[in-house]
Amino acid sequence: MSFAVSGVNCAAATPYNVDLTIDFGLFTDHCRQLLAEGCHGIALLGTTGEANSLSDEERRAMLEAALKVGIAPQQLIPGTGLNAAAETAELTRHALANGVTTVVMLPPSYYKGVTDEGLFAAYARTIEAVGDNRLRVVLYHIPQVSGIPLSRVLVARLIAAFPDVIVGIKDSAGDLSNMQAIAAAHPGFAVLAGADPLLLPLLKSGGAGCITATSNLIAASLRAIYDNLDDESVTGPAQERINAWRNLSNSYVQIPTIKAMIGLKSGNRGWRRVRPPLLALDEAQFAGLAGKYEALP
Amino acid sequence: MSFAVSGVNCAAATPYNVDLTIDFGLFTDHCRQLLAEGCHGIALLGTTGEANSLSDEERRAMLEAALKVGIAPQQLIPGTGLNAAAETAELTRHALANGVTTVVMLPPSYYKGVTDEGLFAAYARTIEAVGDNRLRVVLYHIPQVSGIPLSRVLVARLIAAFPDVIVGIKDSAGDLSNMQAIAAAHPGFAVLAGADPLLLPLLKSGGAGCITATSNLIAASLRAIYDNLDDESVTGPAQERINAWRNLSNSYVQIPTIKAMIGLKSGNRGWRRVRPPLLALDEAQFAGLAGKYEALP
Repeated sequence: MSFAVSGVNCAAATPYNVDLTIDFGLFTDHCRQLLAEGCHGIALLGTTGEANSLSDEERRAMLEAALKVGIAPQQLIPGTGLNAAAETAELTRHALANGVTTVVMLPPSYYKGVTDEGLFAAYARTIEAVGDNRLRVVLYHIPQVSGIPLSRVLVARLIAAFPDVIVGIKDSAGDLSNMQAIAAAHPGFAVLAGADPLLLPLLKSGGAGCITATSNLIAASLRAIYDNLDDESVTGPAQERINAWRNLSNSYVQIPTIKAMIGLKSGNRGWRRVRPPLLALDEAQFAGLAGKYEALP
Repeated sequence: MSFAVSGVNCAAATPYNVDLTIDFGLFTDHCRQLLAEGCHGIALLGTTGEANSLSDEERRAMLEAALKVGIAPQQLIPGTGLNAAAETAELTRHALANGVTTVVMLPPSYYKGVTDEGLFAAYARTIEAVGDNRLRVVLYHIPQVSGIPLSRVLVARLIAAFPDVIVGIKDSAGDLSNMQAIAAAHPGFAVLAGADPLLLPLLKSGGAGCITATSNLIAASLRAIYDNLDDESVTGPAQERINAWRNLSNSYVQIPTIKAMIGLKSGNRGWRRVRPPLLALDEAQFAGLAGKYEALP
C-alpha cells in the first residue's frame, strides 16, 4: 500500500528562550536530531509544538528556519489550521510557496456543536482559498483538545470531494477501532496514530504511521517498529520501551512533561519552558520526573 | 456605584456579502442603528460577531470602519482575545492606537484543562505585552464555547494584580449566582450579563449591565430596563418582550438564528449569511422562524 504521507513523524516540541521567544537554533538542532534518530518527517507546529500559542508570524518563521538548515520540504508537515479560514489559507499558501506541500489541518475549533455539513464547508472553503493543486491535507482529529470531533462520515465526504487533496488523518483520540475503520474504508488514505503505543497495532491493520509526541524522545524505537513490523524480537522490546516512555510523559500535564524529558535527555534545562496557559513543571514535579526518568528502559 | 464599563452593550453581529467578505457598510449602519435604539456601547468582534472566524486584518478593519463613520471610541468594546498572546496584544494595541481603551478579552482557549495559575500567567503576559496604562480589560467567561471557565478565584487574583486594568467580566455562562457573587466580592468591578433575561436581576444585585446577542434586535427594551429599574410598569413588559425574543433566538443554532432575525427585522436577507463552520438556517428553518417572528411581542 502506498500512502501520500506515512512513517514515523514527530510532533516536534518548540523550545523557548528565557523571555519565551522561540529558540530557533535549539529547535532546528532538535529537528535534525529527530531525523537522525529515524523520523521520516517533522510534524512541526502541532498541539505538542504549542503552535496554538504562537503567532502566525512565528509559525512562518519556524518553518523557514527548518528549511534554512537544510531539512527537505518533503520532510516537513506543518500544522496550519486556525479558527479563521483566511489565516489557515494564508499559512498553507506560505508552506506551499516554500515547497512544503503536506500540512496537518485542524478544523476551526472555537464554535462548538457545529455540524458535519458546517465542518465540510469550512474545509472546502479553505482548500478553495488555497487554490493550489499541489496541496495535500492531513485532517486532525483531536476532540479532547479541540472540542471538534471529525466523524467518519465527514472524513468520507471530504475524501470523496477532494480525493487528491485529503490524503490522511492524524487521529489523536486514542480509539484504535476508529483508526482501523477509517483505514479499512479508504485504502491508500493515510491513517496516522496520534498515540505512540498505537503505531504497532495500527500498522498491522492498514495504517500508514504516526504523528506523536513521545517521538520527541524515542524516535528510534518507533522507527524500529515501522521497519520490522513482523519481527517480534524487535517490536516486542521497542513497544515495551515506547509504553514506558509514553506512560511517564503522562504523569503530569503532557506537553510540559515531554519538554522536561527532552531537557533531561539533552541536558538543556531550557527545554522545560512552556508558554502560558501551560506551565512548566514545578521543582517537586521535576524532581519526581527526573527520578523516574533514570529508571526508564 | 460607578463602573468603568456599564449599560446595554450589543454583541454586534457581522454581516457578509455573497462571497462572505464583510459587508462593512451594512455593519456600520447596524452599529449606528443600535446606538440610536439605546445601546450604550457596541461590543463588536465577540462570539456573536463571529470574530473567531475573522482574520486579524478583518478585525482591525471592522474597528476602523466603526470609527470612520463617527462612532466614538468610548462606545466601542472590541473583542481582542486570541489563542496566541502576541496576537491578542497586537490587536489590543491596535485598538488603543485608535483611542479604544476597553476590550473584551477571551482567555487562550485551545489548550484545555489548564490551571488558574496558567490562565493568570496568560492574561498577565498579554497585559504586560500591551504595556499601555490606558488599557481596560473585560474578562470573558463563556466556558460552554471556549472550554475555559474563569473561576472566581482567578478573577479575584487578576483584579488584585491589575486593579486599574481588569475592570469587568462578561459572564455568558448563564449562572446568575456566579455573577452576583463576583459583584458582591468586588464593588465597582463591572459584571456584565451575557444573557439578556439576566440584565434585570443582575442590575438589582450590583451588576453593571450586559453584553448580549438579542440586543441586536431589541436594544430599546434592554435600555428601558436599565433606565427604569425600579418601575415595574416598565420593566415587566420589557422583560416579557426580551424573554420572548431571546427564546425564539434559541430555537435553532443561536448565531445564525439571531442573524436571520436581524434579516427579518431589517428586510435585508443578506443578514442570513454566516461563515463556516456555522451554517445559515435552511429554508424550512427560516420559514418556521419567520412564522414565529410575526407573533413576537
